[in-house]
Amino acid sequence: MRPRFILFGDSITQQSFSPGGWGAGLTDRYARKADVVLRGYSGYNTRWALFLLGKLFPAGLQDAPALVTIFFGANDAALPDRSHKRQHVPVPEYKANLCEIISAVKSLSKDTLIVLITPPPVYEKALQETAWKLYGADPEEAFSRTNDAAGRYAKACVEAAGQAEASVIDLWTCMQEKPGWQTRYLRDGLHLTAEGNAVVFEKLLEVLNDKGLSFEAMRWDFPEYGDVNADNPVKTLWELQNCGK
Amino acid sequence: MRPRFILFGDSITQQSFSPGGWGAGLTDRYARKADVVLRGYSGYNTRWALFLLGKLFPAGLQDAPALVTIFFGANDAALPDRSHKRQHVPVPEYKANLCEIISAVKSLSKDTLIVLITPPPVYEKALQETAWKLYGADPEEAFSRTNDAAGRYAKACVEAAGQAEASVIDLWTCMQEKPGWQTRYLRDGLHLTAEGNAVVFEKLLEVLNDKGLSFEAMRWDFPEYGDVNADNPVKTLWELQNCGK
Repeated sequence: MRPRFILFGDSITQQSFSPGGWGAGLTDRYARKADVVLRGYSGYNTRWALFLLGKLFPAGLQDAPALVTIFFGANDAALPDRSHKRQHVPVPEYKANLCEIISAVKSLSKDTLIVLITPPPVYEKALQETAWKLYGADPEEAFSRTNDAAGRYAKACVEAAGQAEASVIDLWTCMQEKPGWQTRYLRDGLHLTAEGNAVVFEKLLEVLNDKGLSFEAMRWDFPEYGDVNADNPVKTLWELQNCGK
Repeated sequence: MRPRFILFGDSITQQSFSPGGWGAGLTDRYARKADVVLRGYSGYNTRWALFLLGKLFPAGLQDAPALVTIFFGANDAALPDRSHKRQHVPVPEYKANLCEIISAVKSLSKDTLIVLITPPPVYEKALQETAWKLYGADPEEAFSRTNDAAGRYAKACVEAAGQAEASVIDLWTCMQEKPGWQTRYLRDGLHLTAEGNAVVFEKLLEVLNDKGLSFEAMRWDFPEYGDVNADNPVKTLWELQNCGK
């Protein structure tokens, strides 16, 4: 009935409806025009994401989404010799997996807007402090992710978008342009604060506006109440709806 | 694929994904388990809502929602001799309309949980100040809604829920039990603050928990990442999914 925006990703997507979250912001902004569908899978990497494609984007799906955001990498970038190694995916495989996800979405419709989002930067000091609190002084637990590693995945994500002709938001780079990004945008060194969520929201709106999916360009789901003729609501509600106003 | 929670109502529903909103909170709480679908229509009363039923709850719909919230009355209660009179619906008709909406939802499935929410109380002083700012000293614009009128609709809403055997949250009554409700819960005398949204969220969770739709009682959409066997993800992802864990 309404165009769908599917948000596919890991915990940074799953948590995007917490207070100030970018998914909630998108739903609010596109109320009456698009349905935002949350498909965030906390802890998942792109290797595991591939197994979900058949259910999320099954071949032959009639109602192709208008937008799909693909936001993985924070778990793929977990270091291979530390406590989160089971989530690790090597960079070349990560990049190939992103291309496979894009390909699955594109197979449904050429009209779907696909937006890749790179992993955000990592503030190692806060991550280590979190690990110390949770696990004590186990050096295996600390240093499970580095900002350098996240940067390599961000670069690969940008390259995958270029190769597969998808849009991309280089969050890793643009967040670090702001002084104080470490605590301004990240609440535990990895996940986003409300202000960090706002960066994703604003960058995403820019892409949507640029690619013909601005709020203004989209059709209302039933007319605004000021356009309803109170003396003859059936006329306005159905005629306006059917003429697409 | 996932059970759907449909939020059907007026602006207080449409705005429920603003920061601190009850719709966003519900999406966050039920991430990985239910899809929250926003069907809020700012300015709409129950008379106009009836015209939407055929599209929102069409007869023969296979995928009946697990939950429908029905949250109207703030516009129906606009006074018939003031500037918002075109939105006014008399109390008996409002009550009958609610029963008709419930009946349309019930016709899809007997298993759908239906929760009516009464209009919130009205803080007339703030409403009048807003009207003065927007329209100046036009007495037609001020006093378009009163708390007494909202209370009559709330009472009718509770009665409709009783007659039609639906659940109900009497927001008008429970909000007024808290000292300072006028500005604590209402931001302009009519719409909800973040704290007012939290009341709706908490009351709704109570009903969901009570009626078998607690988060814990619902099935995961794919296993938690800790349950994924990294050495054999296809096995865990598909076997766990298929056995409903």
